[in-house]
Amino acid sequence: MNRIRYDWKRLEEAAAELFMRARVPHNHAQTVAQSLVHADLRGVESHGLSRLPIYLRRIEAGVICLDKEPEVVKQEGAMALIDGSNHLGAVVGVAAMDLAMSLARQAGISFVGVRHSNHFGSCSYYAERAIEQGLILLVLSNAPEAMAPTGGIRPFFGTNPIAIGIPAGSEPPFLLDMATSVVARGKIALAAKKGEPIPEGWAIDQEGLATTDPQRALLGSLLPIGGAKGYGLAMFIDILCGLLTGAASGPDVKSLYDNWTQPQNIGHVFLAVDVRRFWPLAVFQDRMDAYIREIKSVPRQAGVAEILIPGEIEGRKMREQKANGVSLSPAIAQELEQLCAAYGVDWGRTRINA
Amino acid sequence: MNRIRYDWKRLEEAAAELFMRARVPHNHAQTVAQSLVHADLRGVESHGLSRLPIYLRRIEAGVICLDKEPEVVKQEGAMALIDGSNHLGAVVGVAAMDLAMSLARQAGISFVGVRHSNHFGSCSYYAERAIEQGLILLVLSNAPEAMAPTGGIRPFFGTNPIAIGIPAGSEPPFLLDMATSVVARGKIALAAKKGEPIPEGWAIDQEGLATTDPQRALLGSLLPIGGAKGYGLAMFIDILCGLLTGAASGPDVKSLYDNWTQPQNIGHVFLAVDVRRFWPLAVFQDRMDAYIREIKSVPRQAGVAEILIPGEIEGRKMREQKANGVSLSPAIAQELEQLCAAYGVDWGRTRINA
Repeated sequence: MNRIRYDWKRLEEAAAELFMRARVPHNHAQTVAQSLVHADLRGVESHGLSRLPIYLRRIEAGVICLDKEPEVVKQEGAMALIDGSNHLGAVVGVAAMDLAMSLARQAGISFVGVRHSNHFGSCSYYAERAIEQGLILLVLSNAPEAMAPTGGIRPFFGTNPIAIGIPAGSEPPFLLDMATSVVARGKIALAAKKGEPIPEGWAIDQEGLATTDPQRALLGSLLPIGGAKGYGLAMFIDILCGLLTGAASGPDVKSLYDNWTQPQNIGHVFLAVDVRRFWPLAVFQDRMDAYIREIKSVPRQAGVAEILIPGEIEGRKMREQKANGVSLSPAIAQELEQLCAAYGVDWGRTRINA
Repeated sequence: MNRIRYDWKRLEEAAAELFMRARVPHNHAQTVAQSLVHADLRGVESHGLSRLPIYLRRIEAGVICLDKEPEVVKQEGAMALIDGSNHLGAVVGVAAMDLAMSLARQAGISFVGVRHSNHFGSCSYYAERAIEQGLILLVLSNAPEAMAPTGGIRPFFGTNPIAIGIPAGSEPPFLLDMATSVVARGKIALAAKKGEPIPEGWAIDQEGLATTDPQRALLGSLLPIGGAKGYGLAMFIDILCGLLTGAASGPDVKSLYDNWTQPQNIGHVFLAVDVRRFWPLAVFQDRMDAYIREIKSVPRQAGVAEILIPGEIEGRKMREQKANGVSLSPAIAQELEQLCAAYGVDWGRTRINA
């Protein structure tokens, strides 16, 4: 069954127009639209246009605030602290990323903490921008509760993601974008919908017992990668993004979906390193290329056609979908079409005639 | 069976004297001795005095070089690059850590890359020093080959560790010190010695197949935490510590044990953040204390007495062993006693009369 394909540039336009109808200024509407379509292009549907409807609803409900721009509350040496003013997460994220990149060019390294932000889309969006500029970027964010600490049975930490972008030359860049949980909650919800069991090691139930029943898992907690190691990583990210910046932390980070009275108050950290302080960029890129080729030449397991670099599959998907159109799930496409109709935005132009 | 206990201060003295007899200058001998006893105090025998004999042998063989101090080859803004001059790893590590802390006090954040270093002991040694100074420290190091990339069947990456220290107040500080592999190679070697199977998920054999046979595992590769996620983290650490600094990377990092002609050329990164740019230290410590108490109050799994913070067990072990003496395995104690006899160092004084 072939899905309908959509032109990525026109998807960006339609998404930006939807945000503008909801009073988001032109430049910010474009930023958020780009960050969402970026995820769809990479095949990461969970962080793509599937989030547009909830962003819009939160703007309309006044839980996301458009009146005040993100503000630099402190900048000293190579560090800065940004108050996101409860604006759209991607708007806050891009402001922080730009500042981190500019500070890193001055000082070789930078650390920008962010408080009072919202869901800021896929971390890879920021890492990819940095790669284009020849910088190394580390992006951290906390998130609403989903994982218990090791030994516990109630969610406390979010699936707190970490993304890292490192430029290469002719080989694909290093673009790691990972949650600190074994899987996303969405994968368990999907198994529940299909009535299929989940592998052991994904989640625990409400009593803290290992479970392969997705329904019990959804009432319990996700498990972190590597047991206590992933718990440690999720806690580290929460401390930096939440406690250090002054954003919410642990279960005080509010849900994107279930809380209609309070801002999420998510925190992020953007840490940039300027490669040029160590090597001329072209030399570093050559070194990365040789290194990546060395990894790719490691003997492989039977049935493995190729060793992949983090982010490589998603990068290929992006190139393919830029050329041939973006595949959206019919449910998401239908929801966007209805929203466009309600807001008076032309959805039809996004479809590629097949 | 009660093991003999050893006085930790006298262990440090005896270890430092051994290094001095091998022509290591007094201050450096003390540094390395402290870093090793630190690991034994925390109950991490694999990174403690068990490494002293190999350090000594490498000095005597001339593969570790004592003639030249670690050198700052570049310092601009908040970044620096140190050439370890192939000195003892802990000597290089402490020089880099001190510079990272001093730069972070000036700029809020710092990044110190290190090349031409050697095995530098337990990462937690450095993180603990930073915690005492009220700083956040991230320590990364690459290491000799042990893990294949996902899909591969030959070791390429080391078990590349990451350690993070964050100060708290009256509650235990956050001190995560983890390899990016599921377990250390030593655990598999121990199972092989005992003739016991290992759990699935620790390692793959030479064909890349899952194995519970420790002998086959030792010929194969360790597995990273979280599958492709841990592969990504290990690669990220190798790129920063190796490619960016100019140290060796991948399989070019030389073995501590098997290579007697070439320096290890290990690379490290020390990244420090000055908490005081965000909060007065006491306020941040109070926030950490409240946060840690909140985590500890999460409802627990049946049979779990307490939720622990990363590094908490090891911190307790350290306090207990400082008070009552350090427990060393008889095999390690015997090897140290023989070395002391050979070098004319008094080992007997380290024993606590029981």
